Amino acid sequence: MRSRGGVRLRVAIDLRSEHDFWAFASRHRVVLSARFPAVSLVEITDADHVVKVLRAAEVYFGWRFAPDWFPVARSLRWIASPAAGIDHLPLREATEHGVMVTRSFGFHGTPMAEHVLGLVLGFARGLFLGMTRQRTDLWWKPEVASSFFDVSGSTMTIVGCGAVGHDVARLAHACGMTVLGVRQHPPVADAETSPITGWFDVSRVEEALAHAQVVVNLLPATAETTRFFDEQRFAAMPRGAVFINVGRGSTVDESALLAALEDGRFTGCGLDVMVCKPPPMDDPLRQHPRVVLTPKTSVFSHRYMDHAVEFFADNLDRYLAGRPLRGLVTPLISTASPVPTGEGVSSA
Amino acid sequence: MRSRGGVRLRVAIDLRSEHDFWAFASRHRVVLSARFPAVSLVEITDADHVVKVLRAAEVYFGWRFAPDWFPVARSLRWIASPAAGIDHLPLREATEHGVMVTRSFGFHGTPMAEHVLGLVLGFARGLFLGMTRQRTDLWWKPEVASSFFDVSGSTMTIVGCGAVGHDVARLAHACGMTVLGVRQHPPVADAETSPITGWFDVSRVEEALAHAQVVVNLLPATAETTRFFDEQRFAAMPRGAVFINVGRGSTVDESALLAALEDGRFTGCGLDVMVCKPPPMDDPLRQHPRVVLTPKTSVFSHRYMDHAVEFFADNLDRYLAGRPLRGLVTPLISTASPVPTGEGVSSA
Repeated sequence: MRSRGGVRLRVAIDLRSEHDFWAFASRHRVVLSARFPAVSLVEITDADHVVKVLRAAEVYFGWRFAPDWFPVARSLRWIASPAAGIDHLPLREATEHGVMVTRSFGFHGTPMAEHVLGLVLGFARGLFLGMTRQRTDLWWKPEVASSFFDVSGSTMTIVGCGAVGHDVARLAHACGMTVLGVRQHPPVADAETSPITGWFDVSRVEEALAHAQVVVNLLPATAETTRFFDEQRFAAMPRGAVFINVGRGSTVDESALLAALEDGRFTGCGLDVMVCKPPPMDDPLRQHPRVVLTPKTSVFSHRYMDHAVEFFADNLDRYLAGRPLRGLVTPLISTASPVPTGEGVSSA
Repeated sequence: MRSRGGVRLRVAIDLRSEHDFWAFASRHRVVLSARFPAVSLVEITDADHVVKVLRAAEVYFGWRFAPDWFPVARSLRWIASPAAGIDHLPLREATEHGVMVTRSFGFHGTPMAEHVLGLVLGFARGLFLGMTRQRTDLWWKPEVASSFFDVSGSTMTIVGCGAVGHDVARLAHACGMTVLGVRQHPPVADAETSPITGWFDVSRVEEALAHAQVVVNLLPATAETTRFFDEQRFAAMPRGAVFINVGRGSTVDESALLAALEDGRFTGCGLDVMVCKPPPMDDPLRQHPRVVLTPKTSVFSHRYMDHAVEFFADNLDRYLAGRPLRGLVTPLISTASPVPTGEGVSSA
């Protein structure tokens, strides 16, 4: 650890949430204190508290960092976010101020895969149909008969297929699906045990869509992905397909999606994200009978913060040892005079 | 094949259905004719046709056999049902008339496992909640937060865990669940690759229920299973559990189930079968907000008849060769003078 004149490394922890599984709890403090006895962990308990804590913090572990905090946070070197997405983080400002930003990954896939498979199976087995029909119709077997499909033996195409996509693919494969992956730079040689049967680069996305009973959109929000799913790409999907968006709302042209739904192209459409959050009550997608909306809950997991703290602890080890951080999304800023972790901490 | 005085073996095929995936189609006739060129396949096309065809048939391959057909069906030796369940078949009368009855198995598990997992994930991820809320509430994240659960890492107990149960267990295991199996005579030693972690015999069912986040009922309808799931067994399940019935309606005490639901014991309850089919419109289970009803569609598969014909063809081979039939549910009646299949057919 670089010299800090006897001052212990200070970590500001800003992980408050209305949901306990997204909040830093006493068990997390116990874990971090035991592993890093020489690190000072300061929890931010309310908004007024932020500036005071940031003045002395070298590391910020929190959900959101406001750009106007940079001038105050003079000692700040690293912003560690427990989220996977980065579009809400002040990357440009951080880079200007010489601060590194890391995202978290590797543990969002399990709940998201459960969410996606739940949506797929709900449409495939006519479960969503039943939810409304059971209260108004005596029996609706013919409607299920004319709309259900066998998941086993069908094909899923995952667009934006990274780490989360692999977890979705694993479950889909276990259900007997063939899985096609689409990404900007597909792997040249995939592992033999990969659940993904075939890869397509983005220029061939329509080919991959043409085979899909189920299309899963996991694209991140970037300039290139804005309204990626448009009229032409929806038209490339077979009739009766299911379209699921658990990526970002901005990647879908919602007018084109509505038109495709009204044209009867889709058996169902599952949306965990939309352009507006929440969409207005009179939004026709929200009211469409073949759309199932979830309020951005695909990543909900009671183990979320446990995993996020574990990811952070691993990165804090790396930081203290001067090794490269995982999930770095800004330029690397070298930590001066690296020394082995334990020693660095105990001598601080 | 036993001597039949130059008369070809006649098979009556009575597989009509309003659903094409449950009906015998021309492609099935092609398959059977090619495999059994010397067998006469007679399709029953309407109810009036049955008696005429049955007069000369030795084998009946169909959905339902009425007890009053036996006196007419003087040459009948074997009733082959494409269904898995046997409670609708005239087993006693068949035995009295010296007729064997077979059920079908081995292909119902795939769609049923998809159905069960769809129900589990729908409750776990708050998807059913969304279905109603999205049309009336702006956002309902807190309701999902307080009712969702992680499927991975949770426990499923399957009661009546046979072939279908194993298919359900395989999918649940792929989703990271621990699976407990309950049956009358649990296997002494299970295969190493079995997705079932632990077995309980019926006398210890409450122990197995106490561990379960999800309980799947696959019990058949017998004298011993009537209202098997009663107040005491529901009370043995942990609060917040999900109860799914894809077995038979008679195995559940519906008043006790309703009481448990009203007491808030269950996060959700998925019913593919109930005591009445269909249940009356004012049935409180049908109207309960945490119940998802499906109209006995868990076994729906577009490949159903393909598999059922394949199962029958395999058994017809055995019948012609005088070998034991698979899925026999009545006493074995030996077929006299067995000869190898091919020879038997071509010499007939």
